[in-house]
Amino acid sequence: MTRPEPQRGFPDEEFAARTAAAQRAMAAAGLDALLLTTEVEIRYLTGFLTRFWESPTRPWFVVLPASGKPIAVIPTIGAAAMARTWVEDIRTWSAPDPEDDGVSLLADALREALGAGGRLGLAEGRETHLRMPLGDFRRLQALLPGVAVADATALLHRLRFIKSSREIEKIAHVCDRVSGVFEEAPGWLRAGLSETTVFRRFKIACLAAGVDDVAYLVGGAGEGGYGDIISPPGERALAAGDVLMLDVGAVFDGYFCDFDRNFAVGPASQVVADAHRVLWEATEAGFEAARPGATCADLFRAMQAVIADTGFGAEGGEVGRFGHGLGMQLTELVSHSPWDETELAPGAVLTLEPSLTLGPGKVMVHEENIVVDEGGARWLTRRAPREIPVLPA
Amino acid sequence: MTRPEPQRGFPDEEFAARTAAAQRAMAAAGLDALLLTTEVEIRYLTGFLTRFWESPTRPWFVVLPASGKPIAVIPTIGAAAMARTWVEDIRTWSAPDPEDDGVSLLADALREALGAGGRLGLAEGRETHLRMPLGDFRRLQALLPGVAVADATALLHRLRFIKSSREIEKIAHVCDRVSGVFEEAPGWLRAGLSETTVFRRFKIACLAAGVDDVAYLVGGAGEGGYGDIISPPGERALAAGDVLMLDVGAVFDGYFCDFDRNFAVGPASQVVADAHRVLWEATEAGFEAARPGATCADLFRAMQAVIADTGFGAEGGEVGRFGHGLGMQLTELVSHSPWDETELAPGAVLTLEPSLTLGPGKVMVHEENIVVDEGGARWLTRRAPREIPVLPA
Repeated sequence: MTRPEPQRGFPDEEFAARTAAAQRAMAAAGLDALLLTTEVEIRYLTGFLTRFWESPTRPWFVVLPASGKPIAVIPTIGAAAMARTWVEDIRTWSAPDPEDDGVSLLADALREALGAGGRLGLAEGRETHLRMPLGDFRRLQALLPGVAVADATALLHRLRFIKSSREIEKIAHVCDRVSGVFEEAPGWLRAGLSETTVFRRFKIACLAAGVDDVAYLVGGAGEGGYGDIISPPGERALAAGDVLMLDVGAVFDGYFCDFDRNFAVGPASQVVADAHRVLWEATEAGFEAARPGATCADLFRAMQAVIADTGFGAEGGEVGRFGHGLGMQLTELVSHSPWDETELAPGAVLTLEPSLTLGPGKVMVHEENIVVDEGGARWLTRRAPREIPVLPA
Repeated sequence: MTRPEPQRGFPDEEFAARTAAAQRAMAAAGLDALLLTTEVEIRYLTGFLTRFWESPTRPWFVVLPASGKPIAVIPTIGAAAMARTWVEDIRTWSAPDPEDDGVSLLADALREALGAGGRLGLAEGRETHLRMPLGDFRRLQALLPGVAVADATALLHRLRFIKSSREIEKIAHVCDRVSGVFEEAPGWLRAGLSETTVFRRFKIACLAAGVDDVAYLVGGAGEGGYGDIISPPGERALAAGDVLMLDVGAVFDGYFCDFDRNFAVGPASQVVADAHRVLWEATEAGFEAARPGATCADLFRAMQAVIADTGFGAEGGEVGRFGHGLGMQLTELVSHSPWDETELAPGAVLTLEPSLTLGPGKVMVHEENIVVDEGGARWLTRRAPREIPVLPA
């Protein structure tokens, strides 16, 4: 019954294909090199996977030239791990260095790739940040006076938006394992447990089921609904009449799931039962709308239409959207919002996350994960039941 | 026997004291406002604690004016959680917004705090980054033409370097719980377990012992030593003759521990047993040196002297230092390195992390956590045994 665990890592050909695609896009955009500074940017092209990014001490850099493999410019402490990737050109310095924390080494690598002038691509747009001190970035620019910096956000997004079958397999795996944890949760979730205890047991159950980490777990619980979906758990005990929501971003081999489940503690009120059905139907409508050529805005409208037909207020304004991209990050670019006209294509992995207002200060959110195939969408999560599950009160 | 769990959160007076100290430092530095964009900067002054930062989608901002409480400029989805902190002035926008993701709202708040000109403090120095898109930062600067930006890294570091007794209590708690997990580990750690299994069971044991998250777990295992201390676990099974090291950054209420333990699988070789003793003695020397008025460089030299007296090569060059600051982050500013002349004072929380070379491509690292008191240092971790623990082979 248990799905086998997918192979960890990727063969070199996967990184070669990603790199070639990046270089074709760079040529089209007139970019002579890319500078990558964040965990996901660097991992995508190199396969460098480590929890060490949790420490803010050291900057890490990868330069992608117009042709050839990526060049790593990294602290010595990462040299052995980087040497096990497909990257060959690894340049290191003993970090932290208060005088020059890799800046001149990076400038040298960029100069080789760019020549005296040249155009350097850097992610500067939505949902990005530069993972190096701003002061060091200014020093770097001063060392490269002829170089023009151009925004590479869209280029990098298009590369990562369409997942390979190996990537989809990893996401499907973590979705499957966490789906099982949710299905078994009514066996131990019950009134009287504190939120803190619920969160802790849920994380343990996910690890025991085979995920690597539970990087993200938020939720809410309250009588007749919850008002806040991003807070850590409190000491309050679950009580009859509560609605409990758990939203989990667990990780397998560097790939995330991101979905939630709602539970009623004791029999659900009519409004709670109805809200759950409406969100379930909205998710169904989002699923039906998700096919190659449809846009994220189409998915938003499909889900919104279901909610608008009921008496519930749609919460798109508070959450800001009805779902998003998913993969190496808990949330990736594209938003199911009226303004996002990104076209879906086979290999796009998405969340469907409609929400609605139950009453003053009470919301309900439901979320599933899907992948777009040639003919339509495919569930990666095992579908939530249409009727809200009821826990012992 | 079990220590009670410390109270979660902080009373408002703690945030008021932090804010007043920040504002005194701002006045001394001639800064009219601070702009905070990262999780720790914002949490330090507001108490805003959420796992939602895992999503890169939305920027979050806090403005600290020259007087008064911090002002939050945040996505609507965080309004309810921020309203439970001591912050009163909460300004929100529906994020993500592709046209204006909080930039004009933030510019308005900064203009109020700064007037037409003014000096804005921003963390631009070592171990910092700006958590907003670089393009949006450029747009922000264009909206504030008369404003000068000054580096606030040192100011923010000095505030956070000395912990309050409530902060120390949280760090001591997570150190204590994880110390217990390490002490019980020889009851289940044994040859034949794969690294992946060891990591998973260790995380489960930490959660069961009462930590909130195991945000960081790295390690190494290999015959006669390990060569890489930052990689994820592999499928290789522990075997007789191996040295296993686990380095854990677990979290309680937003505060980290960061320490490691080494184990020999089956009887340790002479060189492994000696290396463990040397590192234990080096840590002891670091502990003795850690008192108010001593510098981080003093701690480095004390530990280095112990290692230099033996035949082992000191690995300061690879890891780059022999320990660092600890608290809301796994690693915080200050490095036990010859170049860091930061003076210790009561309330400084530090790791002691000497390392050495066992042979070609083989290192050993040992790490403990301490707090500096009036009269000297105090262990926060329960001390590792001097002799390397031996696991069943």
